[in-house]
Amino acid sequence: MDSRGIKKILEKVKSGDLPVDDALHSLRTLPYEDCGYVKLDLHRGIRTGFPEVVFCQGKTCEQSVEIVRRLAGHHATVLATRVAPDVAERIAEAVAGCTYHSTARLLVVDRPGEKAKKAARKGKYVMVLCAGTADLPVAEEAAVTAESMGSRVERAYDVGVAGLHRLLDQKERIMRANVLIVVAGMEGALPSVVGGMVSCPVIAVPTSVGYGASFGGLAALLAMLNTCAAGVAVMNIDNGFGAGYFAHLVNR
Amino acid sequence: MDSRGIKKILEKVKSGDLPVDDALHSLRTLPYEDCGYVKLDLHRGIRTGFPEVVFCQGKTCEQSVEIVRRLAGHHATVLATRVAPDVAERIAEAVAGCTYHSTARLLVVDRPGEKAKKAARKGKYVMVLCAGTADLPVAEEAAVTAESMGSRVERAYDVGVAGLHRLLDQKERIMRANVLIVVAGMEGALPSVVGGMVSCPVIAVPTSVGYGASFGGLAALLAMLNTCAAGVAVMNIDNGFGAGYFAHLVNR
Amino acid sequence: MDSRGIKKILEKVKSGDLPVDDALHSLRTLPYEDCGYVKLDLHRGIRTGFPEVVFCQGKTCEQSVEIVRRLAGHHATVLATRVAPDVAERIAEAVAGCTYHSTARLLVVDRPGEKAKKAARKGKYVMVLCAGTADLPVAEEAAVTAESMGSRVERAYDVGVAGLHRLLDQKERIMRANVLIVVAGMEGALPSVVGGMVSCPVIAVPTSVGYGASFGGLAALLAMLNTCAAGVAVMNIDNGFGAGYFAHLVNR
Amino acid sequence: MDSRGIKKILEKVKSGDLPVDDALHSLRTLPYEDCGYVKLDLHRGIRTGFPEVVFCQGKTCEQSVEIVRRLAGHHATVLATRVAPDVAERIAEAVAGCTYHSTARLLVVDRPGEKAKKAARKGKYVMVLCAGTADLPVAEEAAVTAESMGSRVERAYDVGVAGLHRLLDQKERIMRANVLIVVAGMEGALPSVVGGMVSCPVIAVPTSVGYGASFGGLAALLAMLNTCAAGVAVMNIDNGFGAGYFAHLVNR
Amino acid sequence: MDSRGIKKILEKVKSGDLPVDDALHSLRTLPYEDCGYVKLDLHRGIRTGFPEVVFCQGKTCEQSVEIVRRLAGHHATVLATRVAPDVAERIAEAVAGCTYHSTARLLVVDRPGEKAKKAARKGKYVMVLCAGTADLPVAEEAAVTAESMGSRVERAYDVGVAGLHRLLDQKERIMRANVLIVVAGMEGALPSVVGGMVSCPVIAVPTSVGYGASFGGLAALLAMLNTCAAGVAVMNIDNGFGAGYFAHLVNR
Amino acid sequence: MDSRGIKKILEKVKSGDLPVDDALHSLRTLPYEDCGYVKLDLHRGIRTGFPEVVFCQGKTCEQSVEIVRRLAGHHATVLATRVAPDVAERIAEAVAGCTYHSTARLLVVDRPGEKAKKAARKGKYVMVLCAGTADLPVAEEAAVTAESMGSRVERAYDVGVAGLHRLLDQKERIMRANVLIVVAGMEGALPSVVGGMVSCPVIAVPTSVGYGASFGGLAALLAMLNTCAAGVAVMNIDNGFGAGYFAHLVNR
Amino acid sequence: MDSRGIKKILEKVKSGDLPVDDALHSLRTLPYEDCGYVKLDLHRGIRTGFPEVVFCQGKTCEQSVEIVRRLAGHHATVLATRVAPDVAERIAEAVAGCTYHSTARLLVVDRPGEKAKKAARKGKYVMVLCAGTADLPVAEEAAVTAESMGSRVERAYDVGVAGLHRLLDQKERIMRANVLIVVAGMEGALPSVVGGMVSCPVIAVPTSVGYGASFGGLAALLAMLNTCAAGVAVMNIDNGFGAGYFAHLVNR
Amino acid sequence: MDSRGIKKILEKVKSGDLPVDDALHSLRTLPYEDCGYVKLDLHRGIRTGFPEVVFCQGKTCEQSVEIVRRLAGHHATVLATRVAPDVAERIAEAVAGCTYHSTARLLVVDRPGEKAKKAARKGKYVMVLCAGTADLPVAEEAAVTAESMGSRVERAYDVGVAGLHRLLDQKERIMRANVLIVVAGMEGALPSVVGGMVSCPVIAVPTSVGYGASFGGLAALLAMLNTCAAGVAVMNIDNGFGAGYFAHLVNR
Repeated sequence: MDSRGIKKILEKVKSGDLPVDDALHSLRTLPYEDCGYVKLDLHRGIRTGFPEVVFCQGKTCEQSVEIVRRLAGHHATVLATRVAPDVAERIAEAVAGCTYHSTARLLVVDRPGEKAKKAARKGKYVMVLCAGTADLPVAEEAAVTAESMGSRVERAYDVGVAGLHRLLDQKERIMRANVLIVVAGMEGALPSVVGGMVSCPVIAVPTSVGYGASFGGLAALLAMLNTCAAGVAVMNIDNGFGAGYFAHLVNR
Repeated sequence: MDSRGIKKILEKVKSGDLPVDDALHSLRTLPYEDCGYVKLDLHRGIRTGFPEVVFCQGKTCEQSVEIVRRLAGHHATVLATRVAPDVAERIAEAVAGCTYHSTARLLVVDRPGEKAKKAARKGKYVMVLCAGTADLPVAEEAAVTAESMGSRVERAYDVGVAGLHRLLDQKERIMRANVLIVVAGMEGALPSVVGGMVSCPVIAVPTSVGYGASFGGLAALLAMLNTCAAGVAVMNIDNGFGAGYFAHLVNR
Repeated sequence: MDSRGIKKILEKVKSGDLPVDDALHSLRTLPYEDCGYVKLDLHRGIRTGFPEVVFCQGKTCEQSVEIVRRLAGHHATVLATRVAPDVAERIAEAVAGCTYHSTARLLVVDRPGEKAKKAARKGKYVMVLCAGTADLPVAEEAAVTAESMGSRVERAYDVGVAGLHRLLDQKERIMRANVLIVVAGMEGALPSVVGGMVSCPVIAVPTSVGYGASFGGLAALLAMLNTCAAGVAVMNIDNGFGAGYFAHLVNR
Repeated sequence: MDSRGIKKILEKVKSGDLPVDDALHSLRTLPYEDCGYVKLDLHRGIRTGFPEVVFCQGKTCEQSVEIVRRLAGHHATVLATRVAPDVAERIAEAVAGCTYHSTARLLVVDRPGEKAKKAARKGKYVMVLCAGTADLPVAEEAAVTAESMGSRVERAYDVGVAGLHRLLDQKERIMRANVLIVVAGMEGALPSVVGGMVSCPVIAVPTSVGYGASFGGLAALLAMLNTCAAGVAVMNIDNGFGAGYFAHLVNR
Repeated sequence: MDSRGIKKILEKVKSGDLPVDDALHSLRTLPYEDCGYVKLDLHRGIRTGFPEVVFCQGKTCEQSVEIVRRLAGHHATVLATRVAPDVAERIAEAVAGCTYHSTARLLVVDRPGEKAKKAARKGKYVMVLCAGTADLPVAEEAAVTAESMGSRVERAYDVGVAGLHRLLDQKERIMRANVLIVVAGMEGALPSVVGGMVSCPVIAVPTSVGYGASFGGLAALLAMLNTCAAGVAVMNIDNGFGAGYFAHLVNR
Repeated sequence: MDSRGIKKILEKVKSGDLPVDDALHSLRTLPYEDCGYVKLDLHRGIRTGFPEVVFCQGKTCEQSVEIVRRLAGHHATVLATRVAPDVAERIAEAVAGCTYHSTARLLVVDRPGEKAKKAARKGKYVMVLCAGTADLPVAEEAAVTAESMGSRVERAYDVGVAGLHRLLDQKERIMRANVLIVVAGMEGALPSVVGGMVSCPVIAVPTSVGYGASFGGLAALLAMLNTCAAGVAVMNIDNGFGAGYFAHLVNR
Repeated sequence: MDSRGIKKILEKVKSGDLPVDDALHSLRTLPYEDCGYVKLDLHRGIRTGFPEVVFCQGKTCEQSVEIVRRLAGHHATVLATRVAPDVAERIAEAVAGCTYHSTARLLVVDRPGEKAKKAARKGKYVMVLCAGTADLPVAEEAAVTAESMGSRVERAYDVGVAGLHRLLDQKERIMRANVLIVVAGMEGALPSVVGGMVSCPVIAVPTSVGYGASFGGLAALLAMLNTCAAGVAVMNIDNGFGAGYFAHLVNR
Repeated sequence: MDSRGIKKILEKVKSGDLPVDDALHSLRTLPYEDCGYVKLDLHRGIRTGFPEVVFCQGKTCEQSVEIVRRLAGHHATVLATRVAPDVAERIAEAVAGCTYHSTARLLVVDRPGEKAKKAARKGKYVMVLCAGTADLPVAEEAAVTAESMGSRVERAYDVGVAGLHRLLDQKERIMRANVLIVVAGMEGALPSVVGGMVSCPVIAVPTSVGYGASFGGLAALLAMLNTCAAGVAVMNIDNGFGAGYFAHLVNR
């Protein structure tokens, strides 16, 4: 039952066609999601400018193309994550306005004009740092996600703690950021060092980069959870999308 | 907002004091749990004969006494779990109709007559097996829980797989059970053996009994999850209460 | 030695051909499984209407075909699990009455008439819920298993907790179910939420769906074992078959 | 070497007493932390209004008293975490303006007037939710920390997912929050459910509440890291302080 | 039903009082453990000279005393494991012939003459090695267990691999042993080194001795399971009793 | 320095060419492995009739062929483990007397007459049990290894605990065995059940058979280490060779 | 800002064009890594004779070639690790002076004359031991790394503890080493045995060699961390490069 | 057999009383540790100036006193680790020359004059860093151990990465060190940062300091093993003694 349904009941009550107690009964068992909740949900995406997000991993090529096409009809921006290059190609053939970010494995569909709007963004920015070049796919997933949602994003890559000067070189930009995403594999020490330098929130993303006892990113994850720096929160291993999304919520 | 609130709105609509659109707005944002949902929830306990359950571990003695007393006013049976002996004593002083099951660390509050009714139960029964004497507290927690909820319960303890004849001795009773709870620590093999003997559902409960590489019940838990017998589902380590509760739902 | 063997001994005792003490000796060392136990076991399948189950993973194509063919001669329904598409094709060529459920990787062999009987089922039903589309293979394995065994099954897929309204939309059907199977990967939260809504038993099945720190389903498994909702029991990771089997035992 | 040291060099260069190349050499090896960096750091606390934080666990009572006393002389607010009741008492005897939050194990020292200022806060708020009463100490640690740092804080406790209506009752307040802290032990499902309801950042805090296979909070931690809801970041187990601190950074 | 029961049936069959088919029915459902199996089991202990074993950990003092007393009436040797000193004292007061091995936490009850018989043993022997003095309790539990069961036992303690000469000093005795028990904590390397020196079976027992990343004996356990030496089998952590028991079975 | 070197020294001492003290010095620092220890080691294999063993996994095809050919010149039996079919073929082309056991992935090279000798073995035997058909490769690796070393071996496969009657059918043969190898994956319960039935040593071998929370054999391994049956020792996961080798040492 | 920048400021101060306070301000915020720190860093490599190291795993073939070529222009020795054979071939085509160590997967670029210099090294040496032939790639990575950095290196491979005489054969060379690298998989016992024989530092490197419960090298890693021998430090699993690098630092 | 035994044989060979072949036989089976190896071992300690070390944890007070007293008679320095205060007091009463380091839980027994000699040490030094004040016991155990063995030691405590300036303040002293010990709990990031600053070997020691997901030091341990800085080796959790010992071996 949606708004029209409720309105009908109310009008019957008004006209005396429906006793108050019967109306009460109908409304008490009213599944609240029928109160337009779902639609509200759909509207929220459009209203807030958040893109709809499609997680393509585990979906067939056909499903991915279909879903992106359908969403692109309704939204200014559609974001598809974990998109393999061949799938990206297929989507780009079917849908206009696609940009594929191959390192980030992200495909963004923008309505005409959206992209220019994004490029012109000024002011508060999300900054994405990563420790090594191998962390790039995760860092870029975070960066492009935040950009697609509407945040201005700055990047500083390959600034791992074993060569502290590379990080300190970026201090000015880092300290002016509104929120930081810090991506690191191996020992995952970068968020602790960065967290001690800034007073803005730091979102730490462990990556599965490493070998031996890194256990697929577990070492970095545990390190980040146990950081001695205050102001650091942690995402799942390799979850660049989640970090970019969270960062945009903070940056808004 | 509760039923009276909704009724008020409806009556205002009926009387023309509230335009339909304004009423619609109020009702659309109406928190559905204010539609008597909570009360329904409270009623369900009484209606179905389920006791209310109080988890006492981590609560102060005063809190435990207070909560049990309050619930005992409204319910035919109240069940308190993980009750230390001294807390049980304090509750028994404050509330009439208490029975304390010290091995199970359970306290049951029955209205007059309830206990006799339970004792007279016939027919379908839950059967609780345990592998060793050290598993008794968990087994009894399961058994008393199911009894308190209204199931007839049979017990066969110390029937571990290393002496198979002890188990086979009980075969007749086991095969006639409606649902089985099988409690075991150490290598947790009993549910697999029992699961292969019966055609009723088996609820496996690993216990933290064991030493060395039992890792607090992890060995038994993994064994039970990996059982080669069909018809076995698993509870958390030492979760006798959960097993008894689940078994009663099946046995009902 | 089977029933005929025992009968023979008894007849010799009766006729005086065998002294009582010699007969006693024969019977005392009598392997009890020779008392028709095995046959009983075989009969039970037919009697209760349970299909025989063949776990095909790890078996050669030839073995799978052979076993299914042999069983199909004796049983109204035969169920083969974890069947690869090419193996399914080969079986279907060799055995009449096959239906292959590709998502569930299940192959069902029904005697003529069995299928129609199942479709006409009324009354109490098992309901299978799953959190995301990636959990579908496990959910379908559960659903088809329960159906093959003789239960009526309802489905509600893609009702994960991050969009609660999708779940609440199904509340009516969920609350009328006799037993629930709840399948979820990632954080495995769905059984807890569902468990709090219903008063029937909930069988939780963690899936290996997820990435990063999901550790092949461990995160979901631990979450389900630690559920704060009463009335939830857990199956092994990805064990849809086990859940369907257990649910049918409860639903019967 | 500090600012005065650099000034001296520059003055010698100006007066011609020091050749440019010699000055260059001195400045190149100049430890940059002598450039006032440390002092800046100390000043930052005062400037931004952040309290200084003392982690008392593992410190002797004497050390705790001494450090708090010293800091209270320089800062409008001092925050001491993990303070045992007897230590709190000793600090309160030695330092004026102490408030001890026993559930949160936090001690706050406010300069006269600070407390009133905090109480009068309006507008954007941090909201702290917790699943069960046993999670209270961690939830309160988060709440009081954020308050001490200057955020307005709202609370909604005991809103675990097994009784969804309790959570939905609070929907209005939850959806108006600027940032959410969601504290849960056991299966840690609450952040996923909440994360799906709101469009603000959610900080998830697993607690060590639970038994059996909760493994000291590991189950909840893994669940939260694997949440299917976007917009959720995770803190270390029981790290209420970290969550409160992070939330304030976002809320500012 | 025991032998007498079966005999009765047979006699009735013989006399014609019981039709063959009725007798068949009785015998088919005959619980096989009633065929004297249990008694046989009890007899086996006496016959083979194995002592009955009581695991005292987790039993009350009263239970331990009672069980040992009862068994001592029927067996030449009774073995009680994990016996606390005060419990040992209580048992010794109640039962004659007790010897308490405090390091091994074992109590042995011997019938008069048994002890002297054991001391006089010649020939094939079990040899128990341990790496460090901290491993002594487990090593002694193994040694005394094997002795109590009837094996001659030799010991060589504190022969860890970090001082290889200590081990090589014992080479002669080690190489003449019939079966070896090798007890080690920390890195658990001793069984590998010993296993490469001998051609008899080696039973490796990891102990929980160690700190840091020994994780309660896990490091030693994994090392022993992964030994590069052939002829090594492994017991649970700290399971000296199991090793002594197994060694005696081999040594017999 | 080898025997000839020592002999030379002794002869010089005898002839008076070398003072006793100088000889003493030479001998004190004498590397003991030069005393023919290595050769002794090589001889032992031949003397005891143990085959030399070649672990082929991780070796190139050429290396495997070369090593087996060289050893076959000196030994009555050579055993090659983890041999891929194509490597086995290549070895069989190069070396006479090869038998390839494809399930066990073992290749045995026997001198003429050896094989017949083995087949004719009587008396004490090693018995190999396995729980399911998927455990066969490991079980056969154990069985063929023990046979190659000179033990008589009996087999009983697919006797898992979920169908206890299959196991009990074999009771007679099992109870007459001199030593048992029990191979099982999944929940690893078989050794506990068997261990309770027999009084000979039981060697338990966990396999990596299973899925979900079996974690590559960890579940079975932990179960076996925690067995409640006395007389059970454990091998590494899938280590059939080790079990066969150990069993032969016991059976000898 | 680099040295020239600072010099400019100083010259302006000298000439009076820049007030001291303004210069002070510029210098205080001077990013210290602009003080030539980075260059210093680059110089250090040349000065100390350390080669620059390129970690090729995860880099494209093109990137690897490019980086090695660029570095080879500036350094006497360039070391590339984890180089696949085809990548090595491509680099060797592009850069003169390449030597590819295929077992170690290392590529070394030496300026003319460097190689001869290394070969002529005398005196103190690093010794690399490994337990089995499967550990060779890691051992060689360690050995070639140390050689490339300028250390003399000795090797003794396949000296695992299960055949102690192989190790003791090498005692003389081992005891004369200046620093030892001990590489072992499986149970990782070798460093403990070696550590007890020598008085020089021992660097232990666990390898992922093994199966079953070796868990990718975890068993060996834990064993090495828990060694009972003093003087042993541990590297990450399979980290031969790290061990060779560390050993050279000690050996210098 | 000791030197006198060998001498006797040689003299008999010389006198012709023992044939060369018989002597050869005796010497071939000569346990090499009887060749004075053990004594050599004892002498080595004295010769190299290394103290003898007594690990007191797990020893009784009496044992500790006895062992220290006995060793103090033969060595210039005796080091006792993990000494509880009351045990230290008891030892100090029994043995002259004791110094108890309470934070490090170490007791050092110096011969007269030894202590002054140590204090006067110049030149190359071991530097011990630690991240937080809670890491002090481990850091001091490392520092005092290295000092007791004869190294000059410098300390810089509380220089964790979250306040990088504290570390950079110490850069000069750190860069001049001959070998570094870096002690850290929580996320264990300090060794990575330090390792990138220096060109001397870094010994990383994880501590069990932390809470939540630090899992008793596991997080720090994994971080250190996975460090991105070259030149870092790792000790067991809390193993300050091992680090000090290893550092001295390097520093010598």
